[in-house]
Formats: sequence, C-alpha cells, structure tokens
Amino acid sequence: MRPLDGYFFGDYFIGQKFVHATPRTITTGDTALYQALTGSRNPLHCSEPYAQSLGYPTSPVDDLLVFHIAFGKTVADVSYNAVANLGYADCRFVRPVFAGDTIRAETEIIGLHKNSSGKTGVVYVRSDAFNQDDQLVLTWARWVMVHCQAVSAPTNAQTDPLRVPQFAAFVAPDQLSVPACMQRSSLAAGVTGSAHFWEDIPLEVPIRHPAGMTIDETDHTLATKLYQNTARVHFDAQHMAGSRFGRRLVYGGQVISVCRALSYDGLENALSVAAINAGAHTNPTFAGDTLYAVSTPVAKWPLSQHIGALRVRLAGYKNVDPNTGAFASATDAQTVLDLDYTILMQRQA
Amino acid sequence: MRPLDGYFFGDYFIGQKFVHATPRTITTGDTALYQALTGSRNPLHCSEPYAQSLGYPTSPVDDLLVFHIAFGKTVADVSYNAVANLGYADCRFVRPVFAGDTIRAETEIIGLHKNSSGKTGVVYVRSDAFNQDDQLVLTWARWVMVHCQAVSAPTNAQTDPLRVPQFAAFVAPDQLSVPACMQRSSLAAGVTGSAHFWEDIPLEVPIRHPAGMTIDETDHTLATKLYQNTARVHFDAQHMAGSRFGRRLVYGGQVISVCRALSYDGLENALSVAAINAGAHTNPTFAGDTLYAVSTPVAKWPLSQHIGALRVRLAGYKNVDPNTGAFASATDAQTVLDLDYTILMQRQA
Amino acid sequence: MRPLDGYFFGDYFIGQKFVHATPRTITTGDTALYQALTGSRNPLHCSEPYAQSLGYPTSPVDDLLVFHIAFGKTVADVSYNAVANLGYADCRFVRPVFAGDTIRAETEIIGLHKNSSGKTGVVYVRSDAFNQDDQLVLTWARWVMVHCQAVSAPTNAQTDPLRVPQFAAFVAPDQLSVPACMQRSSLAAGVTGSAHFWEDIPLEVPIRHPAGMTIDETDHTLATKLYQNTARVHFDAQHMAGSRFGRRLVYGGQVISVCRALSYDGLENALSVAAINAGAHTNPTFAGDTLYAVSTPVAKWPLSQHIGALRVRLAGYKNVDPNTGAFASATDAQTVLDLDYTILMQRQA
Repeated sequence: MRPLDGYFFGDYFIGQKFVHATPRTITTGDTALYQALTGSRNPLHCSEPYAQSLGYPTSPVDDLLVFHIAFGKTVADVSYNAVANLGYADCRFVRPVFAGDTIRAETEIIGLHKNSSGKTGVVYVRSDAFNQDDQLVLTWARWVMVHCQAVSAPTNAQTDPLRVPQFAAFVAPDQLSVPACMQRSSLAAGVTGSAHFWEDIPLEVPIRHPAGMTIDETDHTLATKLYQNTARVHFDAQHMAGSRFGRRLVYGGQVISVCRALSYDGLENALSVAAINAGAHTNPTFAGDTLYAVSTPVAKWPLSQHIGALRVRLAGYKNVDPNTGAFASATDAQTVLDLDYTILMQRQA
Repeated sequence: MRPLDGYFFGDYFIGQKFVHATPRTITTGDTALYQALTGSRNPLHCSEPYAQSLGYPTSPVDDLLVFHIAFGKTVADVSYNAVANLGYADCRFVRPVFAGDTIRAETEIIGLHKNSSGKTGVVYVRSDAFNQDDQLVLTWARWVMVHCQAVSAPTNAQTDPLRVPQFAAFVAPDQLSVPACMQRSSLAAGVTGSAHFWEDIPLEVPIRHPAGMTIDETDHTLATKLYQNTARVHFDAQHMAGSRFGRRLVYGGQVISVCRALSYDGLENALSVAAINAGAHTNPTFAGDTLYAVSTPVAKWPLSQHIGALRVRLAGYKNVDPNTGAFASATDAQTVLDLDYTILMQRQA
Repeated sequence: MRPLDGYFFGDYFIGQKFVHATPRTITTGDTALYQALTGSRNPLHCSEPYAQSLGYPTSPVDDLLVFHIAFGKTVADVSYNAVANLGYADCRFVRPVFAGDTIRAETEIIGLHKNSSGKTGVVYVRSDAFNQDDQLVLTWARWVMVHCQAVSAPTNAQTDPLRVPQFAAFVAPDQLSVPACMQRSSLAAGVTGSAHFWEDIPLEVPIRHPAGMTIDETDHTLATKLYQNTARVHFDAQHMAGSRFGRRLVYGGQVISVCRALSYDGLENALSVAAINAGAHTNPTFAGDTLYAVSTPVAKWPLSQHIGALRVRLAGYKNVDPNTGAFASATDAQTVLDLDYTILMQRQA
C-alpha cells in the first residue's frame, strides 16, 4: 500500500504497475471551470451545435482537461515526491470523452535512471486512462525527477537493472486517432472565427498569438484541485517557502492549457488534440507571470477527406510579448514551454 | 478576415456587419460559476421550484450572465483595441435562456465619431444575440473608444460619413418583454426573503444595500475568461503595467453583476432584467476595491396582472459604504457605475 | 420582516422561528466548484460508478457542501451581525442529496445568553434543511456571538427568560442515518486508494495527513459566494480593514472542508459524514494561511453488515506541518479547528 508520504526513487522497479485511486466522473461543471481557468474558446468544446455539425453526439470534453484529470490520478503514486516533471512523449488521445464519463488511470514503470549525485533519480512511466467501459481514451509516457529516499531503506533501484526508454520523435500519422464520427462541419466557416483551414496553414511560419494571460495564485491552485493533482509544490505555500523557489509552482499542465487557449487566435479551425509528441517545461511559472504563445506548424498529414493533422511546435513565454520588439532580446529564462503536439484540423470544402 | 491584432477605428464603416465567432453553449456549470463569482441570490435563478412556481419550465439563466457571454462574443471584433467602454443603451432582454441553449452574436456598426485628438474615435454598435433556434434573445447598443490605427493604412472612417446615433432615454414599457409563462408564484411570499412587491417600492427613495463585496484579481479574470471576453486590459498584467492604470482593469460587466447581486437585499422580489436603458462605467475598478450599491427606483409600470416593471438607477461605489457617514464626503472618483435599468417584479396578490 | 442591516441580540427570543429565504437548487456545477475549492478526492462524490457500486443511484452531493449551502441560508437571519461562530453540536446528516435537489432551511432560537460586557450575547439555534419534497436532509445546532444592538431599542432578550441549551457530547450511534441503499462496493478495494477499512483503523492513534493546502483570498470568497453565505466578515475588505483582524476572515466551514479533504490520505475508505458531534473554530484563518490536518479516531460502532461508523477528532492547524519537528512547538494560536465528527466507512468483506 502506498506510504502516506508517497514513493521515492528507491521504491520503484521496472515493470511495476499501479492502479491509481479514485475514478473521476467528468461533468459540465468541470468543463465550465476549465473554460474559466484557461479562457479556452475552441468551438468544438464550447458549442454543442458546432460539435454536432462535425458528427459528435455533443461537445466532447477538452482533450487537455481529460489529460489533466488522468494525469492528476497518477501523481500520488508517481510524482508525489517529484522534484520536476521533466518531459512527455508518445501521448495519444485515442477516444473522445463526454460529460458523464468516468476516467480512471493505470501506470507502469518503464525506465529508471539514477542521477550521479545519488540524491535523485529519473522515473519513466507509461500511463493509460480508461473510461467507465474500460475503453482506452488516452495513453502517455512521461519522466520525472524523484528524490531517492527520505530515509535509509532498501532501494530496489540499486540492484535492479536501470533502463532509459527511447521514444519516437513524434507520433506517426498512422497512429493518430480520428473520431469515427468526424465529418465536415455543415456550419458556415466563420463560426469558428476564421476561414483558414488545414490547407491554408503554411509550415515553418511562426504564428505569434496576439494575447497574453496572467496567471494568479488562485487560478492554478483551483485548476490543480479540480484535477485532483496533489503534488505539494502547487498547494503548500508554507512548504514551498523553504524551497529554492520560495513559493508555489504553477502546474505545468496549466501552462500548456493556457498557451493552447491563447493559440486559438491564429488556429481557429483546430479541432481536438490528437497527440503530444514531446514536451518540456523549460522554466518554472509562478503566480503573477503573464504567458504568451507562439505556434510553429512543422508538418501536416491528410487523415481523411475532411480532416488533416497538423504537427505544431507550441512555445510558451513569460513576461515578454512575442509581438513586441522586446521579444528579440528575450532570454532562455523567459521560455516556459516547448511542446510538440499534433492537432486535428478541418480541411477546405 | 479579422486581423490577429484586431480592428482599429479606421477599419470600421457604418453599416458594416460582423458575425462573431464561437457560438457558446451555456450549462449549469456556467451558472454555478456565475453565482460563485457574484454572490447572486436571485431566487429565480438559484431555485428551480421557485422558477417553476412562476411558470418557467426550469430556472432561466441569469440575464446578466447571458449578456456577458453575448457581449464577450463581440469583443474580438468590436472592442479588442478599445480604450474604454463608454456606454450602453437600448438593451432589451427578449427571451429567456436556459442551460443547454447556445448563444451566438452579430453586430452592425451604427455610428462613428472621430475624436478631435485624431488618435481615437468612438464606434457605435448594435449587437444581437440569438439562441440555437435563431430566436433573438437579447439586443443592445453600446459605444466604445477605439485607437485610430496602429500603423498608417487607409482609414474608411476619414472618407465615410460619420454619424452619432441617438438613443431614447429608456426602453418604453410597451417594448419590454414579459416571458409568456410568467404567472404569480404559488409559493409563500417569504421564499424570496421579502413580502415587499412591486406596489410596495416607493419611487425616488434610495435603497442603500447593506453589503459590500471586495473584488480580487482572480474573481474578475475568471469571470471574463468564462465569458470568453478577450479584451486584454482584463488579462494581461504585463501589458497593463505599461498603461496609465499600471494594472489590469476589472471588466465593467462584472461590476454591474456584483452591484446587481448586492441589490438583492432590498429588492428581493425582483425577477429578471427586462432592459438596460443606459449605463456608464464612471471610473475604473481594480482588484482590491470593495463595491457597494444604491438603487433608486425612478419609474414603474404595470405590465400584466401579476408582473410590474420597475425602472431603477443602480449606482455603484468603490471603497465607501453608503451606509456610513463617510459616504457624505464620497468623491466622484469613488463612483464606478451609473446604470439605468428596468427589472420585472412580482405584484401583490 | 428582516431589517436590511440584520438582527441583533435584542431582536431574538426563545421559540422564535425563521423560514430562510431563497431555496437553492444544487447542480453538478456546484459540485465541480466544491472540488476545485477544496481538492476533495472522496470517491463517493467524484466517481459515479463507485457511488453506484455502493447502491446509490448516482453520486450524492458532498455532505459538507450541503451543510455549507444550508448554513448559508441561515446567515442573513442568524449570524449577519455575528462577532464569531462559537460552536456546533448535534448535527445529523439524515438523507443524501443529489444534483437537481433543492435545499431550503428553517431555524428556531433555542437559547440566549447575554455576555457580562452587555455588548454581546450568545444566540443558540437549531436549524433544519429540507429538500424539495420537504424531507429533512440535515439538522444542526450552533451558537454564535452577536452584537447586542446597533442603536438603543427594545431588547426582548432583557426581559425574556434566558436559557443555555445542553447538548450530548456526541450523536449516539442509534441516531446515525445509514442511507438505505448502502451496500458493499462491488469494486476492487484499491479503487479508493486503500485497502484499509473500518476494522483496520486503530483508535486513539493520530493520523497525520501528509499534505497541506494554502488558502488564497479568492478561494474562500468564491466558496462563500457559492454557498450564498453573506456574513460580511468574509467579503468586505473595506469594512474588515477597520476590524480587530484588519482583514477578511476565512469562513470556518471552508476550513472544515479543506481539512476534511486533506484527511482523504489516511482515511481513503471514508464514505459520507453522518454527524458533527461538536466543533469549534479555535482561531481565525486568513488568506495566505496553509492548513494541515490530523485525524484521531476515538470511537467506532458497527452499523450494518457492510458499514461502520467512526467517530473522529479532526484537528486543523495553520502554518505548521504536523509531519515536521516544528509541530512539537506549535502554539495554541496555530490551531484553527477542533471538530468532532462521525463518518461512515466501509467494513472489510
């Protein structure tokens, strides 16, 4: 049984499996809160008639909200004592989730690497999320830096073979799931705010999204509590006052969601997220930081007559607006997100 | 297509029409958030049995929430580069909205006036909001001050005829919509907190509402994100640090909603909002300000056997309690809202 | 009719009854917000399949959310001018509440005690909450310190007999309600995060819950607005700047909810709250405080073949982590909650 103070690096071994606690039913209360917390305007998720015009029975839950809730389930077993969430890979959104569905998650330890300091190690995991019918809705790999051990105790990791898994640079197009229902929207192109479709997006041309969004302390703590993410770095100001940051850290997933929401202006006809190919939180974000986003499409594949996939590099910045001259002298410390993800997009009629 | 950095004064011409993006389905998640953000206690909106006792199938969505969501749709096209939201007129709530309904909005430019500075102009618009059955639910006029142009470019406004539209001082009683279902509540008078009905409210006697409510930074930003209002003055602290305010501005609509919520104590039998006759945000509100409200009924008209209309002047103040002696020396800078609106109210049995 | 500035001590008499205003329909919007505001992970309330496996038709609303909403109804009549909420007793959760139910509340004055200063008195009340079918869902006693009178006026309390009611130390097991539907969950034990059931919890052994949660200003004000609790000490920073606290007070009920949510880690198989035996807010909590919780089970009774009752002393602390050495020198001023309550818990198979 999980120790009350969570697992440490020495507690993990390759092949170890966790069935995470507390399945979670998602409601329209959650989706409204998600919108209030991120400013999302993706019409697939906020307009039932638009979702229906695409063939969905009703609006699916935002993929990133599903991700955060599923991710939240894994924290108690995987990253309760994490120093940092280092990266994501091979994340695939397999099946849409609707209000009323219940999500549960399982995880397998797929890699371990002890850092030379001996104080921390990197734990690689594969997590799967299922709905109430035991259908896979989402699968992802991530790796986190974890403290080795609070106190002296047998550490499996020292005797077990260590292994660093390799991941493909991106999810191949034939592995992307297009919801079976997805057809061309019968609604006017302008309903989404743009007549620019999949064919109209040039590759390697950065889209500097115009808006910025400041994150306040309550924004990110409400979000992580909603996601039932219990990583104490987000919640416990007393504890964090003694950390090297001196204060609470914004959950990286919230940074992803805000940057994705900002990217609506310029990618209005994006539909769902099909994959997260790779991702890293390059710097911490704190309450009071203002986030900006730049999307750079890097590849595109037609998936069906009506739907194309667009692989995008989504960069997040704090406190420097990419639309201003100051951006030219932005420092590395001002980048907060480097996300490589693949979205589905409507094709031209 | 809308430029990513929004329209400027020179981009508008009289008669120009906009179909705004992203229809929005309203859920009980939105109504719960609205209540948490405003402290609203209007029983029509928070008690399904009370709404049903009045003849509604269920609780209608708070009129001001509908207004904010419809208003939010117009921001990207109308007031993205607004310096200030100057006023409202002839706003009529035509049809109730229920959870599950989807709201979309359209706008026509009805007036233009270039300020003598040449740097800004005033844009007058008429906006209409429709439900998923294309029924008009709400129509309003407003005018905003907009920057003339970011860069040199052809400015239609310089050659087109300018025109300042005139509005009636208030919406005439025969233009007010009473929901067809509306009947006398079969419930005890006390269910609303008061046995004072339409006949019992004296004109020209100010009602100093007893409570005050402090607005924090997250309150108003959650609200505007929920409303998908993208005016950057509300969201981007980094940008606003360089403005004359030095910080984010609270969305004026949130001030209206909080003052309306405060007015419950003293106007407990108010039902829905039938019209906003005129309105101005007389001073900016910032996070940390505490709002107080005074309602002065100025006219009343019987509309049916059971329902009367009450025209009310709702004044909002910041950081000075109208119930204290200090109020006598309140300065003009402490008024934040001057709203002239008409509410429906139950008549005596 | 209730005066706009609320009742004072002199306005109350024993036997006086209040039917509180504005019945309130609870939705999944409310439950999502409650989760975001407290970080609750109790699977009964967040997982519909888990609730159904226990025999419920769907997830019941968290008992404490029901309590806060019912409590909120009573504030305008009972504690609008309260100096402090002194204590709770004999609170029994009689019937589950589901999204869609509407809650109303009534109160009877059951005791009065004038303080020797003559400036304040203690008002003892019994409040009952009912659903839309007039079924009792919740009943509780509480006592509050109230200002005697704002201005000179007849004070009933001076002539009426005063009386201090006595309460049993705890709700007897035969007075606890077990929802008729409640059966053993057919789901695997691990779904809740622990295989520790009612039999496995030792008495008198403190459970130091591992996490802490910082409360920010917007957290508690969103909560009290959601609960329609209008006690001005929570909302009006301008008013509170002149109080001995100098700032807004966190609603004590929010402290209870956060501590209860923190207690999930260690009491994972707790189901609903059956009773609050006694409770006191031993010190005020302010925005910025980080809360920690320790549960000490003090008694247990089997209630059915599948369900047992556990009486628990839930202690809340601010800014001192019970899992650290610093806790040994925690001062009385750092305790914020002393709650004696009884929860239902699954028994071993």
